[in-house]
Amino acid sequence: MIAKTPIRLYDLALQDDRRPSPFCWRIKYALAHKGLPFETVPVGFLDIPTLFGGAQKTVPIIDDGGQVVGDSWAIVEYLDEAHPDTPRLISSPAERALCRYLEASLFLSTLLPLLEFCVKDIHDHAFEKDRAYFRSTREKRLGRTLEEVAAAQQERRATVRTGLEAVRYMLKTAGPFLSGASPGYADYMVTGFLLWPASVSRVPVLAADDPLLPWLERMQDLHGNLGRKSPLYAVAG
Amino acid sequence: MIAKTPIRLYDLALQDDRRPSPFCWRIKYALAHKGLPFETVPVGFLDIPTLFGGAQKTVPIIDDGGQVVGDSWAIVEYLDEAHPDTPRLISSPAERALCRYLEASLFLSTLLPLLEFCVKDIHDHAFEKDRAYFRSTREKRLGRTLEEVAAAQQERRATVRTGLEAVRYMLKTAGPFLSGASPGYADYMVTGFLLWPASVSRVPVLAADDPLLPWLERMQDLHGNLGRKSPLYAVAG
Repeated sequence: MIAKTPIRLYDLALQDDRRPSPFCWRIKYALAHKGLPFETVPVGFLDIPTLFGGAQKTVPIIDDGGQVVGDSWAIVEYLDEAHPDTPRLISSPAERALCRYLEASLFLSTLLPLLEFCVKDIHDHAFEKDRAYFRSTREKRLGRTLEEVAAAQQERRATVRTGLEAVRYMLKTAGPFLSGASPGYADYMVTGFLLWPASVSRVPVLAADDPLLPWLERMQDLHGNLGRKSPLYAVAG
Repeated sequence: MIAKTPIRLYDLALQDDRRPSPFCWRIKYALAHKGLPFETVPVGFLDIPTLFGGAQKTVPIIDDGGQVVGDSWAIVEYLDEAHPDTPRLISSPAERALCRYLEASLFLSTLLPLLEFCVKDIHDHAFEKDRAYFRSTREKRLGRTLEEVAAAQQERRATVRTGLEAVRYMLKTAGPFLSGASPGYADYMVTGFLLWPASVSRVPVLAADDPLLPWLERMQDLHGNLGRKSPLYAVAG
């Protein structure tokens, strides 16, 4: 039996080895779900265009023994096809379509407020070399300075908490995981969205009594404490 | 071979045999999806408490050869269990949980504005005997007269159109059905939400160029034009 080369996952990194990217988080969980050995390669914002001749604009990117795939949805599809002997991440077209709905719905209700909640904190934790680039691209996208955006952090947090209401309902009608008795890709998506602010913000995003908290702790426990493998501030409080 | 008794579906009815209930619509599609013969029993609002000794507060209710089940989620679960030789409506715990997310998310973004969009029209099409009951319960729930609610119909329509954005994304990334190559329970849920206003409102809820329209027409065509079997006004315009 030939020892398999671990899959390499290019993972956004900040100072102190913080790993904020929600899309990289979901792929770390996806690889662990499938039991595929992997190692992460930490990359700063400005390292991404230097990888693979600039073919990918964003992380996650995986390199599976020379097969390079970017974009989290393409990676999930690739992993389910290339490793058919491992547990599937998405088991039907309907589940894929509904995960896409979850993505779009959370983008609209939660992701932009989450970005605004933590964008200044991401900047402050970024490598020195990445900060000017990060500031200029994000200020252009948001139409305000990072400091102006950060001044509304409390309001953004309130929006995020409201935006998660349908996720709480999902947990209440299923449980102990969002996907039911065992965790599925929907769990990994939402976990990534919540570990993102926790990786950089000293202000916790969830209230201490949020019903999602026991679930998030279960998610962090999974796969040998995967959700605690890089530094985090408190997720709730 | 013994001819099977058709399942009886108690279906909310208005004048001219209009059938508005979004939850009854999803069950009509569910029964057709499974190829189970069924007949609908039209009931007015005030008939519901007289059925089965008042055991059910709402429709849909099905009577499957003496087995009586109410609540659309319980009915779906029952149908998948009691008729295992028919195509499943929901094929995994993850799909069920994600359909519950879709439900909660659309409740928050779309269902209340849809109710406000068409509540006065439901009243105006209800049987004479049901109107006073319908008016008093709905005015109490909405905190305004039906006429006050109806005065904001244009604004409510705008909210509904925005609220459907994540559904459009789902269609764009899957197709030709929301669930992919073939229709699934998510398709039936959203179809019910849209046939509801169309069954009573002369003001169409969707814009004529809404990308959901070709999909909705495909849904109405299914199962021998199921989505046109009771009177409708235009769904778009």
